[in-house]
Amino acid sequence: MKINVVKNVLEASEALAGANRRRLDEAGVFCVNVLSAPGSGKTALLERTIPALAGEAKTAVLVGDLQTTRDAERLGPLGAQVTQINTGQGCHLSPEEVAGGLDTLDLAGLDYLFIENIGNMVCPAAFDLGEHARAVLLSTPEGDDKVAKYPTLFQSAAVVLLTKVDLLGVLDFRIERVREDLSRVNSAAPFIRLSNRTGEGHEEWLAWLRQRRSAAGRPAAAPRRAAGEEMP
Amino acid sequence: MKINVVKNVLEASEALAGANRRRLDEAGVFCVNVLSAPGSGKTALLERTIPALAGEAKTAVLVGDLQTTRDAERLGPLGAQVTQINTGQGCHLSPEEVAGGLDTLDLAGLDYLFIENIGNMVCPAAFDLGEHARAVLLSTPEGDDKVAKYPTLFQSAAVVLLTKVDLLGVLDFRIERVREDLSRVNSAAPFIRLSNRTGEGHEEWLAWLRQRRSAAGRPAAAPRRAAGEEMP
Repeated sequence: MKINVVKNVLEASEALAGANRRRLDEAGVFCVNVLSAPGSGKTALLERTIPALAGEAKTAVLVGDLQTTRDAERLGPLGAQVTQINTGQGCHLSPEEVAGGLDTLDLAGLDYLFIENIGNMVCPAAFDLGEHARAVLLSTPEGDDKVAKYPTLFQSAAVVLLTKVDLLGVLDFRIERVREDLSRVNSAAPFIRLSNRTGEGHEEWLAWLRQRRSAAGRPAAAPRRAAGEEMP
Repeated sequence: MKINVVKNVLEASEALAGANRRRLDEAGVFCVNVLSAPGSGKTALLERTIPALAGEAKTAVLVGDLQTTRDAERLGPLGAQVTQINTGQGCHLSPEEVAGGLDTLDLAGLDYLFIENIGNMVCPAAFDLGEHARAVLLSTPEGDDKVAKYPTLFQSAAVVLLTKVDLLGVLDFRIERVREDLSRVNSAAPFIRLSNRTGEGHEEWLAWLRQRRSAAGRPAAAPRRAAGEEMP
C-alpha cells in the first residue's frame, strides 16, 4: 500500500515533467536545469550568462529558493524574464512548481530557460523538471571529493562546471582527483573550468549552450520558428 | 490516510531520537549534531577537535555520507572511535541510522559523540537524531546570504561556526550581513569565526564544547561516573 502511494507520486511527477518538456518544445525553448550545493555560483553564473546571450537570444530564469527573493533581485535587472519560486521547506524544485513558473513567462518569444534549482546536492538530482539538459556546478572551496560523495548528481549532468577556479591558488584542491572520479560516474559530460569573477571558461560554457540548443533543433540565433512546427 | 502515514512516521522518528538521547544520557555522553552544506569543513573541524580533546576526554564520531568512506578514513587515525554510515540516496541521517551507529560504539568510556550529518542545508534540519546540541557551519565561500535563505537550519543551531575565515581577504563577504540575518532567526547561538587551516576560533569552539558538556551534567575532565548514576 505504502509502495503504491510512492509509485503513484513518482509517476505523476514524471508525467508533469514530460508535459513541461512538451510545452517548452512547442515554444522552441531550450531549458537547462542548473544544480549545485548552496553557494557554488549558480546565480553568479546566470548574472554573466544572461547579458552575454542578450544580443542573440531571449532568456528567462525560474529561480528556486526556500526563502527570500534575493536571487531574483540580482537577476531581474539584467533583461531576462525572472520568476522566483519559494519552496518553504522543500529541498528541491518540483515539476508542479516549474509548471506554475512557466505560466508566469511569455514562452512565445523565448530561446533559453534556466531553472536555478535549490542549493542541494542530493534531492534535486532525483527530480526531472522537464529540462533538456542539466548543468551541475562544483565549486573549488567545496573540495575535490564531492563527485565521489554525490555520484547521483554528477551522473545526471550534461555538463560539469568547476566554479571559483580563481581560488585554486589558495586551496588544496586536486583537479585530477575530480577528473578521475568523473571518469567513473560520467565520462560523457564536458568538464569546464570556470570563474564567475574573472570570466575564465565562460566562452566555453556559452559555446556549449549554443551547440546544445542548436542540436535540440534550433539553430543558434535562428529566425523565429513558424507556428505549428515541432522540434524533433 | 496519507496524512496519518506521514504523522506516524514522524512520531516514530521522534520516539527513536528520544531513545537515542536517553541512551547517551545514561552513558554520560554529550552529543553534537554537526550540520552544513557540502564542503563547509565539518570533517576538517573534527580533524582538529579530536586531537585537541584527546588529553581530557574520549570522543567518537558517526560520519554520514551518501557514498564512500573517505571521511571515516580521514578521522579514523586520530584516536577516536569512528563509524561511517552510508545513506545511499538518503539526504539526511535518521535516528534509526544513528541507533545502529551507537550499537557499533563503546559508549561506556565516552565523553563526546559528534554526528557528522549529510552535507545538506535543508533536510537534516528537520530530523532530531537524539543529539544534545547542534553545531551549524557556514563557510565564507558559500556567500553571506545563506542564513536568510536557509533559516530553518540556523534557527536550530546551538552554535554557528563561520568557517574558512582565512579566505575572507579574497572574497566579497560581508560578515555584518550574516550577523544581521542571524539576529532575526537566532540571536541566542554564539557566532564563532573559525579557520580549520590556521586554527583561528578553535579555542573558542573547544571552550563552547566544554561549557556545554559541563552544563549537561558532566564536569570537564571529570572522573568516570559511577555505574547507574544518571545525568540530570
